[in-house]
Amino acid sequence: MRIVDVIEKKRDGKELSTDEINFFINGFCDGRISDYQAAALIMAAFIRGLNSRETADLTNAMTNSGDRMDLSEIPGIKVDKHSTGGVGDKTTLVVAPIVASCGIPVAKMSGRGLGHTGGTIDKLEAIKGFRTSLSRSEFIAGVKEIGIAISGQTGNLAPADKKLYALRDVTATVNSIPLIASSIMSKKLASGADKIILDVKTGSGAFMKTLDESIELAAEMVSIGDRMGKKTVAVITDMDTPLGRCIGNSLEVGEAIEVLGGKGPEDLKTVCFELAARMLELGGKGDIGGCRELVRKSIADGSALDKLKQLALRQGALFDPWDERAMDEAPVRYQVMAPFEGYVTSMRSELVGKASMILGAGRETKDSPIDPTAGIILLKKTGDYVGKGEAIAQLHTSSGQLLKEAEEMLFDAYVISSEAAAARPLIQAYIDSDTAIRF
Amino acid sequence: MRIVDVIEKKRDGKELSTDEINFFINGFCDGRISDYQAAALIMAAFIRGLNSRETADLTNAMTNSGDRMDLSEIPGIKVDKHSTGGVGDKTTLVVAPIVASCGIPVAKMSGRGLGHTGGTIDKLEAIKGFRTSLSRSEFIAGVKEIGIAISGQTGNLAPADKKLYALRDVTATVNSIPLIASSIMSKKLASGADKIILDVKTGSGAFMKTLDESIELAAEMVSIGDRMGKKTVAVITDMDTPLGRCIGNSLEVGEAIEVLGGKGPEDLKTVCFELAARMLELGGKGDIGGCRELVRKSIADGSALDKLKQLALRQGALFDPWDERAMDEAPVRYQVMAPFEGYVTSMRSELVGKASMILGAGRETKDSPIDPTAGIILLKKTGDYVGKGEAIAQLHTSSGQLLKEAEEMLFDAYVISSEAAAARPLIQAYIDSDTAIRF
Repeated sequence: MRIVDVIEKKRDGKELSTDEINFFINGFCDGRISDYQAAALIMAAFIRGLNSRETADLTNAMTNSGDRMDLSEIPGIKVDKHSTGGVGDKTTLVVAPIVASCGIPVAKMSGRGLGHTGGTIDKLEAIKGFRTSLSRSEFIAGVKEIGIAISGQTGNLAPADKKLYALRDVTATVNSIPLIASSIMSKKLASGADKIILDVKTGSGAFMKTLDESIELAAEMVSIGDRMGKKTVAVITDMDTPLGRCIGNSLEVGEAIEVLGGKGPEDLKTVCFELAARMLELGGKGDIGGCRELVRKSIADGSALDKLKQLALRQGALFDPWDERAMDEAPVRYQVMAPFEGYVTSMRSELVGKASMILGAGRETKDSPIDPTAGIILLKKTGDYVGKGEAIAQLHTSSGQLLKEAEEMLFDAYVISSEAAAARPLIQAYIDSDTAIRF
Repeated sequence: MRIVDVIEKKRDGKELSTDEINFFINGFCDGRISDYQAAALIMAAFIRGLNSRETADLTNAMTNSGDRMDLSEIPGIKVDKHSTGGVGDKTTLVVAPIVASCGIPVAKMSGRGLGHTGGTIDKLEAIKGFRTSLSRSEFIAGVKEIGIAISGQTGNLAPADKKLYALRDVTATVNSIPLIASSIMSKKLASGADKIILDVKTGSGAFMKTLDESIELAAEMVSIGDRMGKKTVAVITDMDTPLGRCIGNSLEVGEAIEVLGGKGPEDLKTVCFELAARMLELGGKGDIGGCRELVRKSIADGSALDKLKQLALRQGALFDPWDERAMDEAPVRYQVMAPFEGYVTSMRSELVGKASMILGAGRETKDSPIDPTAGIILLKKTGDYVGKGEAIAQLHTSSGQLLKEAEEMLFDAYVISSEAAAARPLIQAYIDSDTAIRF
């Protein structure tokens, strides 16, 4: 087989065979196929498309390119969750303890943040002492003993995806549904869970701007999961506005604790509780109505909050997560005032994320240090009325130097108008292999 | 400007600006733009297409990437000729002396052969002593003194094209009309001629298999030439069957001498004389009818043949080109016999070229040595009747070792059938900026 023939086939819009896709991924990983040949093939795939069979084969080839986590020692149905990412998305911090407290084992590998979006690992590390680099045996032992462990990636999962993603990033081939779907699913499938729930974000602050695109991406990933024998479902949730009111690592942990304690912002609660209920349903805890009730109970009786405490202490936290000594606070705080009155009709979430990054909460490049205390509390969000000079947000940071730049960015992020806009539903759709419901 | 934005634009089928195309070619040449980014952009251009303005801009950027020959010292209108290449294509050896003998200066830079097609430089070097590496001043002096010089490439012409072609070759992006047109024209425009004639081959042995494709390529190149202020015309000639009867370097020189002497195969004469007449027309020697008459006269009075002699002797040939000592002959000759009787209805020219390469006449890679005496004389061609056991071809080579392989290939190249096929016209179309005539 010659790679130039494979490129030519996809260039002309033909379907690639399983062997051809394996040949490409294997050759790309071991260096026999050059970056420029891979770039040409990926551009052809971007423009010509990949059908569901090709997308599943690409996913499988990338999954097989590295280690596969073996979670078989852990009894029960292991359900993994993935979010396509957004600003203020701290759902894992809420959902994982709820689900674990209801008896579904959570063996969760998470990532760090990059650019304007945060990562679960960075958030957990805002808790003093919390260790996120677990060995494989520590990770498994955690799940077996307390039903939950959260770790940075262990092992070399889907290295082909990592290599291909780096190439796509510099060749304008990121934003393709089959390529995004196979990238996400290759890592999830290598993570060893039995079933997968996907939180596909939609709206201006998400990768997928429209509901149609989000459904298309979700359906593609559900189809891949099914073809690989791992039941997968997707919930499409709104990301037109940051989720919750807090952005930044320690601030988001604080907000997650509020929600686990039955308080906190309604939007965050709605999304987290629905995701948790769907995970329980996937884990075999009965129909969705009963699962929603289980979630409600785990919050009401404090068992979900207690599970977060168990997790934190088992992974090295020095104090209970809600203890005021558990996390540092930012020395500098600054109120951003509304320049004029009106309704917040929409928010450019990406700009909120960038403002938070500027304050120190995020990384511009993979090696930038982050400040766990930095971030933003949104005092006003989409739908709220603000008076002129009223505080719309509070900036948290360690020095006053970057306040002005972050404030300017926040001004750009808020769209304030004399008339209120219609509210968007938070849970927009649910998709599994049999069903696709738009709410 | 960021290359990833330029790639994205073409990926989405949008038109690139002149600045964006210059940015790409300049960055690609100086290494700021990587091979993989260039590969992604070129694949996008292949699939999405380039319009005539973009194609002309790409050509111009590649022309400007290196040296430009300055032929202004040579008085008169300098007309350059380019052939898209085919098996047995020795037209330059015939056309250049005819045109020069009629008073149009010929300052011709030619290339070497690769794969199954030959190159004018290799053919001329079959003549003992003939030097093809001329300095710029030798080259100019030759044209000024005897009206003709033929040299291998001097200077660094269109290095961007060379680099881009090497990339296209390994990324399945060769066969695109705008990319082929800009590649050919960038080199021609850098060669410094005032006007350009293109011999675009069509048929199974050519790069362009159909007349429609060939016309499309020709029209694109004519358009580029006009946009750059260099009048360009194209003649579309048949390459369904090798041109003439001889393939291989010394054999082809011998056949060219025959044609210049008024003999030789009709197909080769027809194509060469028409190209020569069109070059004279471009050079301002009157209407096409008068130019055809000038060609006829230059053959009849021996002036064209004499011009080849002047060229050879001025560039170092030890003997008159038709002297039997001027070229060596192959020590091994072998007759290929028809396996059954019938009409030759078509020939796979590429296989004839490959058979000739196997015998030693061509190069598999750029650095392979070649045997100037090796090649094939086609005793039967498309349209001819052959009896069973009758000789269809004569193989010339230096050792018996590869005869069988070449013979097998020739058997595959001949399509013999009980009924004769209709003859194809040799001159299929003529195109300039005002006219497109199909014959």
